[in-house]
Amino acid sequence: MTWHDLRDPNDRELDVLAERYHLHPLHIEDCRHGNQRAKVEEGADYLFVVLKPVHVTDAGEVSITDLDLFLGRDYLITVQEGDCPTVRAYLDQLHATANSSRADQLFYKVADGVVDGYSPALDWFNEAIDKIEDTVLERPSPSTLQRVFSSKRGLIELRRALSNMRDVASQVQRLETELIQHDMLPFLRDLYDHLARNLDMVEMQRDLLSGAMDVYLSSVANRTNQVMKVLTVLGTVALPSIVISGLYGMNTKGMPWIDSPYSSEIAIGLMLVTTAALLIVLKKFDWF
Amino acid sequence: MTWHDLRDPNDRELDVLAERYHLHPLHIEDCRHGNQRAKVEEGADYLFVVLKPVHVTDAGEVSITDLDLFLGRDYLITVQEGDCPTVRAYLDQLHATANSSRADQLFYKVADGVVDGYSPALDWFNEAIDKIEDTVLERPSPSTLQRVFSSKRGLIELRRALSNMRDVASQVQRLETELIQHDMLPFLRDLYDHLARNLDMVEMQRDLLSGAMDVYLSSVANRTNQVMKVLTVLGTVALPSIVISGLYGMNTKGMPWIDSPYSSEIAIGLMLVTTAALLIVLKKFDWF
Amino acid sequence: MTWHDLRDPNDRELDVLAERYHLHPLHIEDCRHGNQRAKVEEGADYLFVVLKPVHVTDAGEVSITDLDLFLGRDYLITVQEGDCPTVRAYLDQLHATANSSRADQLFYKVADGVVDGYSPALDWFNEAIDKIEDTVLERPSPSTLQRVFSSKRGLIELRRALSNMRDVASQVQRLETELIQHDMLPFLRDLYDHLARNLDMVEMQRDLLSGAMDVYLSSVANRTNQVMKVLTVLGTVALPSIVISGLYGMNTKGMPWIDSPYSSEIAIGLMLVTTAALLIVLKKFDWF
Amino acid sequence: MTWHDLRDPNDRELDVLAERYHLHPLHIEDCRHGNQRAKVEEGADYLFVVLKPVHVTDAGEVSITDLDLFLGRDYLITVQEGDCPTVRAYLDQLHATANSSRADQLFYKVADGVVDGYSPALDWFNEAIDKIEDTVLERPSPSTLQRVFSSKRGLIELRRALSNMRDVASQVQRLETELIQHDMLPFLRDLYDHLARNLDMVEMQRDLLSGAMDVYLSSVANRTNQVMKVLTVLGTVALPSIVISGLYGMNTKGMPWIDSPYSSEIAIGLMLVTTAALLIVLKKFDWF
Amino acid sequence: MTWHDLRDPNDRELDVLAERYHLHPLHIEDCRHGNQRAKVEEGADYLFVVLKPVHVTDAGEVSITDLDLFLGRDYLITVQEGDCPTVRAYLDQLHATANSSRADQLFYKVADGVVDGYSPALDWFNEAIDKIEDTVLERPSPSTLQRVFSSKRGLIELRRALSNMRDVASQVQRLETELIQHDMLPFLRDLYDHLARNLDMVEMQRDLLSGAMDVYLSSVANRTNQVMKVLTVLGTVALPSIVISGLYGMNTKGMPWIDSPYSSEIAIGLMLVTTAALLIVLKKFDWF
Repeated sequence: MTWHDLRDPNDRELDVLAERYHLHPLHIEDCRHGNQRAKVEEGADYLFVVLKPVHVTDAGEVSITDLDLFLGRDYLITVQEGDCPTVRAYLDQLHATANSSRADQLFYKVADGVVDGYSPALDWFNEAIDKIEDTVLERPSPSTLQRVFSSKRGLIELRRALSNMRDVASQVQRLETELIQHDMLPFLRDLYDHLARNLDMVEMQRDLLSGAMDVYLSSVANRTNQVMKVLTVLGTVALPSIVISGLYGMNTKGMPWIDSPYSSEIAIGLMLVTTAALLIVLKKFDWF
Repeated sequence: MTWHDLRDPNDRELDVLAERYHLHPLHIEDCRHGNQRAKVEEGADYLFVVLKPVHVTDAGEVSITDLDLFLGRDYLITVQEGDCPTVRAYLDQLHATANSSRADQLFYKVADGVVDGYSPALDWFNEAIDKIEDTVLERPSPSTLQRVFSSKRGLIELRRALSNMRDVASQVQRLETELIQHDMLPFLRDLYDHLARNLDMVEMQRDLLSGAMDVYLSSVANRTNQVMKVLTVLGTVALPSIVISGLYGMNTKGMPWIDSPYSSEIAIGLMLVTTAALLIVLKKFDWF
Repeated sequence: MTWHDLRDPNDRELDVLAERYHLHPLHIEDCRHGNQRAKVEEGADYLFVVLKPVHVTDAGEVSITDLDLFLGRDYLITVQEGDCPTVRAYLDQLHATANSSRADQLFYKVADGVVDGYSPALDWFNEAIDKIEDTVLERPSPSTLQRVFSSKRGLIELRRALSNMRDVASQVQRLETELIQHDMLPFLRDLYDHLARNLDMVEMQRDLLSGAMDVYLSSVANRTNQVMKVLTVLGTVALPSIVISGLYGMNTKGMPWIDSPYSSEIAIGLMLVTTAALLIVLKKFDWF
Repeated sequence: MTWHDLRDPNDRELDVLAERYHLHPLHIEDCRHGNQRAKVEEGADYLFVVLKPVHVTDAGEVSITDLDLFLGRDYLITVQEGDCPTVRAYLDQLHATANSSRADQLFYKVADGVVDGYSPALDWFNEAIDKIEDTVLERPSPSTLQRVFSSKRGLIELRRALSNMRDVASQVQRLETELIQHDMLPFLRDLYDHLARNLDMVEMQRDLLSGAMDVYLSSVANRTNQVMKVLTVLGTVALPSIVISGLYGMNTKGMPWIDSPYSSEIAIGLMLVTTAALLIVLKKFDWF
Repeated sequence: MTWHDLRDPNDRELDVLAERYHLHPLHIEDCRHGNQRAKVEEGADYLFVVLKPVHVTDAGEVSITDLDLFLGRDYLITVQEGDCPTVRAYLDQLHATANSSRADQLFYKVADGVVDGYSPALDWFNEAIDKIEDTVLERPSPSTLQRVFSSKRGLIELRRALSNMRDVASQVQRLETELIQHDMLPFLRDLYDHLARNLDMVEMQRDLLSGAMDVYLSSVANRTNQVMKVLTVLGTVALPSIVISGLYGMNTKGMPWIDSPYSSEIAIGLMLVTTAALLIVLKKFDWF
């Protein structure tokens, strides 16, 4: 059993292998064109599978690349498109440790590694959402919002990759092919299970994110509400003083108490009394 | 018929049993890895079932753990992962009271107990939603909102567990296996029914919660609206007084009535008349 | 043919009948436990059907109870759970008028009566929604909102009952049983049709309600908008007068026209001119 | 081949025909009861079809009525319920021009006419939505909103009718009946296609309407935002003048420049400078 | 093998071809009527296929036209409806370069060209959404909103075309016809894949657009919130000065410090102290 591990779809060796194993030109084109959906297709006497390994950089960028596999009776060709350190490291490790004598076992190990690669991405999103939930209620800010939207974008892409991968896992189980022996079925079912669980998780994360978005919006609305209340109370508290001082500032005759030697005290007393009355009324209507 | 009731998936005994009953290594791994989806899988001559018992603490935390079952012709292995007091108590009680001579009957009893364990969780959410609905219209506050979102989160998890459990109950009915005898079918259908009813309930609770969320948002909007009205009316009511007292405070000559001995009364009278006119206009446009 | 019409699931007679007709213990339990989903199950030589009669009180409360039926070759057992005056009246009337010689015909009549019982509930909601739509645009108030949400809650429950009932009607048609003779099929299809039509209606009512909710929210937003406009215009209209009267109230020297005998008229004229100019500007920007 | 064209379901002739052609009592009841779903049912040796012709009045009211058809081997009975001028005119025209010798051909022509009758309704909605979209961004008003909601209500009803009609068209194609000859199949498929296209159109119109609703809401929010800005700027611009004129209006001693002969000019100059400074600051923060 | 390339569905030649190849009148009508759904139908001994080529003008208008194909054993008829420069150029190029000896190969090439024509449209939307996302958070304006809604409208139409095209590609693969030879299947599957990928992309773009819409709304809400804060602070900061200057402007006797030679300094000092105290309080409540 031979494993051809190509690191570049434009490698000339792919043409040589295509000729040797009678690979369909459309499949070779798919490898070279890149950006495929995860899928499985039956060729003449081989399976062509596209997997979507995922890699999260430290900065939180989700990058999804393609990994193409040709599974024949006694050979496996893997073609890595794009640059995914996670899958590269895993394949190098497989080279060092794996000594499968069967192509379908190796195929499973590669696919299993790709699926395991989703876990760090999900963990990253879990942490990001936890952080968002912590800040969203107490310190809602536009930068939080921006993080909500970039996480949302990442989850949209991740879900798309996962849901196609799950369909592939389900199809591979149902294929009537001799390329995959019967004893591999529990392992493929395990793969499917793992992907379904991941997809469940992504759906839950999306729900949580849209919940966080709702919290954000209602937090902002609530704050506006609070500002309104303070504005009302402060503006209102000053009104009696302004009106009364205006009255005693008039150049008219006969204002009550104007000739008393305590007229200023009386005026200020009036202000305090009306302000207090107003505060009591506002309090009754529960404004602050 | 033997019942092996393991309380810890890392128990060495599980390896012994795996060897004796030829349990598939992937299933043993599933037990030890934890956090599986509810599922049923056919092994060589046994069924591997993962159930999701649920427990609600007094503080309202929903914790969902795993309970793994291996159902053989004359044995049942239960492996409890995580710490779920509800299911532990139920299993202990089964030990004391059950004396089934058939493995499939015991299997049904265990599953039935797990499903019964969902009812307290649903009741807890029912009460929580009732409380939320009571406070949301009259005293909407950010803490209510927080309870809405934590209930939402709990329901998302509960629905996920229930919907997988229902799929398991449906699959078990359709399995063509001799491990479950034909007279158990009505009981399994009953289990399915119970789960479907619970799922209906959770969906309804989700609808009610999102309704409560809408009430909250519109309550807050309504309150803001009310504050705006009071602000307008109060601010507006003071305006004529401020303008007229300003006019009579000017150091200009020839203000009407300024030399009358009743000039203050006239000025204040003017203020009252214009304020009253304004109030009538605002009333007509239905501002307060 | 015998009709056993039990008015209480805890009636001892049910046990007697269970023994005579070999009814499955789980079905008897379902009758006594209550609060089932509408469903149909095939027993040894009978059908067990749970229907969900609905009753609307004058106050607009929707109450949904259970009606359990056991349809045998030559007997029909009806077990009424809960208190539903609509279905009780209908069953009493059936006793008086029906003289079916076949159990399946009587079964159809009972089911048809339960389905007819949904019409008053739908009519009640139609009227409630019409009333809501009338008030929501012109006089939006929190009490309208409360009616929106209680109608929504009622429709959620009604839809759940109807959709399960429809599934039952569809299953009964496809059963391969000799308990229901072939000439009943058009009648069962008619039942299904009736339920599907009702479900369509409930879906439409839900759409209308959520439309009414949207109208409410935009009405409130629109009103806030209006309040803002009036606030702006009134606050703005007073500003020139306040500033100018402040200016002429200063104890400074050399204010223009201050020594003219018409200084007051000039000052007031200035106020009117600036206010008018401001109003023209606001008008141009379409503020009121 | 005979065509019985009844204009009233309560016509006595329907009873005569029911007896002659052995029409099922439930179908006759359906005709007379009205307000059915579009459906097709196989009778003893005839097909019973309910179609939903639609009519839009000049005022934009969508009225959906019932047209019942009984298709036999050598007869067609059409029963028009309710008052739909469109379908009446079409049937009259068919009388004048059609001379089909086969019942299934005439059946197709009637159904085709009913389906063609949907186009004016769709055109009407297209125009209504165009008008709404034109006004919604520039002159959003509650009356626009009312038109949005009435169009939405009309589309909900239209979609319900269309989707049932499409199901009928699809069922009729798959019926294994000798009443419809094989050469009619392309025509029935064409009917199905036409209905599917109409349904697509209605779905798109619904999407456009809900888009217009979103535009409306954000337009209103945007306007509120604009009002807020003007309010802030105007209120703020007047503040320095009010404070400074207040200061120089105090009866205190030692105000700077108070004894200068240019004190008024100095005070007014101060006001202008502080106001200008404020405007520059507001400009920097992009407030107007 | 002959290729009839008609550029106008009203061309008389279409009638000639219809007669020669026995094309069904309904299909000819479909060509001439225009505005069909993408579809495939089996004729007597030919396939009738409607494709939906798409063209994006420089101004960003999406125009979707029809391209009708009749695929016979040894002929292909293409009928272009409407004006789509993209598909016209592609067909002209095919004339120049293609020398297929088989009709089904030519059919595939034409369909492949139509599908490739979707890529520029998708790219155009990708760029448009990128531009929207850039402006929406920093400079939200009604014109951005207008672009959101026109993109949304374009995507609704594009998705409708793509989803019907995908159904066609899936149906063509499953047809049991001798008109398409077996070696074309991988190519048709490739076509399907390409369309499914495009549809995935459109769905993602719709998600991103509705995300951008949410950002817009919350940006506007956030800005309103900011304006409120500034309004509060500025209005509030002026209040103590206005009240105190009003007090010292009163014509009353006995105001404290009124006779001091530093009374103005004392009054202004009072204003500064109270304003500062207010600012500290507002700061503590985090208002600015």
